[in-house]
Amino acid sequence: MTLEETMIKMTFDRWNALLKQFNTALESLTDEQLQHEISPGRNRGIYLLGHLTAVHDSMVTLLDLGERLYPEMQEIFINKPDKSVPEIPSAADLRQKWQHVGNVLDEAFANMQPSDWFQKHTAVTAEDFAGEPYRNKLNIIVTRASHLAYHLGQFILIK
Amino acid sequence: MTLEETMIKMTFDRWNALLKQFNTALESLTDEQLQHEISPGRNRGIYLLGHLTAVHDSMVTLLDLGERLYPEMQEIFINKPDKSVPEIPSAADLRQKWQHVGNVLDEAFANMQPSDWFQKHTAVTAEDFAGEPYRNKLNIIVTRASHLAYHLGQFILIK
Repeated sequence: MTLEETMIKMTFDRWNALLKQFNTALESLTDEQLQHEISPGRNRGIYLLGHLTAVHDSMVTLLDLGERLYPEMQEIFINKPDKSVPEIPSAADLRQKWQHVGNVLDEAFANMQPSDWFQKHTAVTAEDFAGEPYRNKLNIIVTRASHLAYHLGQFILIK
Repeated sequence: MTLEETMIKMTFDRWNALLKQFNTALESLTDEQLQHEISPGRNRGIYLLGHLTAVHDSMVTLLDLGERLYPEMQEIFINKPDKSVPEIPSAADLRQKWQHVGNVLDEAFANMQPSDWFQKHTAVTAEDFAGEPYRNKLNIIVTRASHLAYHLGQFILIK
């Protein structure tokens, strides 16, 4: 196991464990429960599901894997806070989109070589990357895993 | 910047950013607010503060940096759930302990060399580590950063 492979394993063990925990929590909730707030006056489950779907969808472009699947979700679930958009996708629709984004990422990751993960992501210039090699593709997984953990801690509060 | 240094930077950028966010949230709360629950019927802020202090304290031994500072916190804040122990340390006491553990870790980390982070932690045998090099000290930071992010997402819900 090379040092690159070791670091990729460490990062993806976390990423995959968090996704598994999130999916277990998601499957345990009904569509009706997803309408509940994580805590009084805070985000609803359905908003967090849409938010995570939109953020993970944006990884497709950040990792240079193609085009975003649901660019329209950016406005509803990232730019705007919960309860500020009158009509949002249904829970059933968001469950499908969440799963689809996850599948697309998994398939693309399976085709990547270890060294690919240490190449620059698309939000950094080649010039900046030369001096800041940590702004690589693997770091997108590191930061999004942290983001996922943050919202997972909230998501499991839904009753 | 070597590959080792790149990975250490990626990991510690997350760890330090999460600690900073947590400390900002902690400073914004009064001792009285720390008695509030993150969501009705869930953990109180004071329990999460004690829990994170105890978990980070346990990193001292896992990373082979010495003895735990507050071993008695294991029982109250890790083994037992919130509201099951009649007497727990005060908010003021826990704030001090949290800061002390953070300082001890920071000082010890400053004395470590990049290659030290890729040595085994104390909860894996040399035999197992030979085939599982990802069970290294840096991975303790990776997993505890994920744990911190999870509880940070909850901690910021306290009003």
